Amino acid sequence: MSGGAPVLGILGAGQLGRMLALAAGKLGIATHVYGPPGDTPAAAVSAAFTEAQYTDEKALAAFAAKVSVVTYEFENVPARTAEVLSALKPVRPGPGALAICQDRWIEKRFLQDLGIMTAPFANLEQESGIAPAAAAIGFPAIVKTRRMGYDGKGQRKVGDLRALQAAWHDLGRVPMILEGFVPFRREISVVGARAVDGAVASYDPVENTHENHILRTTIAPAPEADRVRPEAFRMTRHILDALSYVGVMGVEMFETSDGRLLVNEMAPRVHNSGHWTLDACAVSQFEQHVRAVMGWPLGSPERHSDAVMTNLLGEEALGWDARLPPPGTSLHLYGKAGAQPGRKMGHLTALSPRKD
Amino acid sequence: MSGGAPVLGILGAGQLGRMLALAAGKLGIATHVYGPPGDTPAAAVSAAFTEAQYTDEKALAAFAAKVSVVTYEFENVPARTAEVLSALKPVRPGPGALAICQDRWIEKRFLQDLGIMTAPFANLEQESGIAPAAAAIGFPAIVKTRRMGYDGKGQRKVGDLRALQAAWHDLGRVPMILEGFVPFRREISVVGARAVDGAVASYDPVENTHENHILRTTIAPAPEADRVRPEAFRMTRHILDALSYVGVMGVEMFETSDGRLLVNEMAPRVHNSGHWTLDACAVSQFEQHVRAVMGWPLGSPERHSDAVMTNLLGEEALGWDARLPPPGTSLHLYGKAGAQPGRKMGHLTALSPRKD
Repeated sequence: MSGGAPVLGILGAGQLGRMLALAAGKLGIATHVYGPPGDTPAAAVSAAFTEAQYTDEKALAAFAAKVSVVTYEFENVPARTAEVLSALKPVRPGPGALAICQDRWIEKRFLQDLGIMTAPFANLEQESGIAPAAAAIGFPAIVKTRRMGYDGKGQRKVGDLRALQAAWHDLGRVPMILEGFVPFRREISVVGARAVDGAVASYDPVENTHENHILRTTIAPAPEADRVRPEAFRMTRHILDALSYVGVMGVEMFETSDGRLLVNEMAPRVHNSGHWTLDACAVSQFEQHVRAVMGWPLGSPERHSDAVMTNLLGEEALGWDARLPPPGTSLHLYGKAGAQPGRKMGHLTALSPRKD
Repeated sequence: MSGGAPVLGILGAGQLGRMLALAAGKLGIATHVYGPPGDTPAAAVSAAFTEAQYTDEKALAAFAAKVSVVTYEFENVPARTAEVLSALKPVRPGPGALAICQDRWIEKRFLQDLGIMTAPFANLEQESGIAPAAAAIGFPAIVKTRRMGYDGKGQRKVGDLRALQAAWHDLGRVPMILEGFVPFRREISVVGARAVDGAVASYDPVENTHENHILRTTIAPAPEADRVRPEAFRMTRHILDALSYVGVMGVEMFETSDGRLLVNEMAPRVHNSGHWTLDACAVSQFEQHVRAVMGWPLGSPERHSDAVMTNLLGEEALGWDARLPPPGTSLHLYGKAGAQPGRKMGHLTALSPRKD
């Protein structure tokens, strides 16, 4: 690494950190990954790796001293970690966006304040709040822990008060929200980016399908994208601007059967539903994120091809050393050591000529 | 890195090694780069780096012990290095191909034996050979050192015997060849790959233009590719099969004004004229090379887009942190420290929809 060359610090050494490091590599930018001991696939493609806990303030300070900018691959960066680092180096996206996206209640309130529609929701902080929340939201409903949920973890669908009470105990009696169950036509998402100078660029809306709460397939662009694009782009830009956000964000939305778009979740990072951009766009979401957080101008989010991205879960990622993806399909494997069922191990992107 | 996971060893830590390491990263394969001290851009994206001379047999043995397969980014790997390594681990492409491609006279003889057309050539091993070579080839001609030439280094165009004699001295009185000057319409190249199982896949022929003997632009596919494709593919496959080659090879050809294809040079490695495949194909030349040398099946060389690749030389690679490539253009920077004039520092690939 040369004297004054910029270094991108990445908190988190999983597959998203890995693909960020590869994208930084494409731009000639060195990366330094930070993460706790364990399976750390991002470390193998980075110039440096700090193996330490997120609470290790000495290690955090040493890491900050070696990088130009800090970003992260996951939204559950502890608040204190973000605070320690942002006193030393720019942390992008900023700790404010992180705090909002880490807590489902704060996130929903933030969206409500912006006038952006969500499913109806109620705060549920203690046992005494169960009955009022149920009265406000009705059933069926979904109860979710306010913090640390992902891939369906920390949530239950509940059909009556008794089920809600049971879920409250099962999920650990931590602060939760109760969400009204929205009959939706489909889930779409927008991966948007905002630069230091305030420029915004969003990739076309995509349609996502899940299996066991884990993303299985993304169709890019979403069929009939014209119907949802203007409103989906408007909401994404509104969110990014309101947060003075820097970096890429995944915004998950429901399209209801009566044609409304509700925002379900904001992910302050590169997003699984944007993996197709690696193969179908000149500038991928990973490169876009690197550009944004390094203070570079954003690239065009234009796609050259249509794409269908399929996650490879668990053992689906094995055996590719002897098997061939079909022509026009791009294989990505994350180099993880253990192929536990449901674990995201890689993905396939099937390309086809643009239809619009 | 997990216990039994394969590791790709790469000799050479320049930009080609870097792009090979990034492609291995896409497939979940860890890399270990080996190269002498200096500017080593491949090291920053590899799991391990051995900084040592190619003649350091102890370091070579330690390197071989840690990798599954050895490949290289440049053809001037010393024969002894290849020999030491291939006694320990598979070296792909094999030392035989390396030996042939390292010496212009042996290379031309090899092609002649296959019945593949080249420019007329004569061996010129010592001063007493100057007059006979000149008599055989005539003028104008090009005199080239048999070994270690690249990007126009080690060669001179000569118009008469006196100029040839001067060039013989200037170029160091080492073994050379004298080549007849072929008036050609254009230079094309084919990047082909051959797998361990003998399967061959070639990317479409491309047209190259040079400035000061350095590749400036590659147009993919070559305009009027139909005219040259069958013969260019046939010759490429013939060469790959004759060498029992494993990996990617760049085959440079001249299309003469009377419509013949002459092979000018074989590069036993990924090739600058194949960089466009990173952005215009689901499987790039770098991934294809990794697939081949790791014993994986080859991917499809199909392209989804047409492309024009332009090298960024010297200071042309600076300032991209504040400048935007046009929409549909992909920027690659190699992370090199010094932007000396003419040095390959990065490239741009402009994509457009396939026209055929």
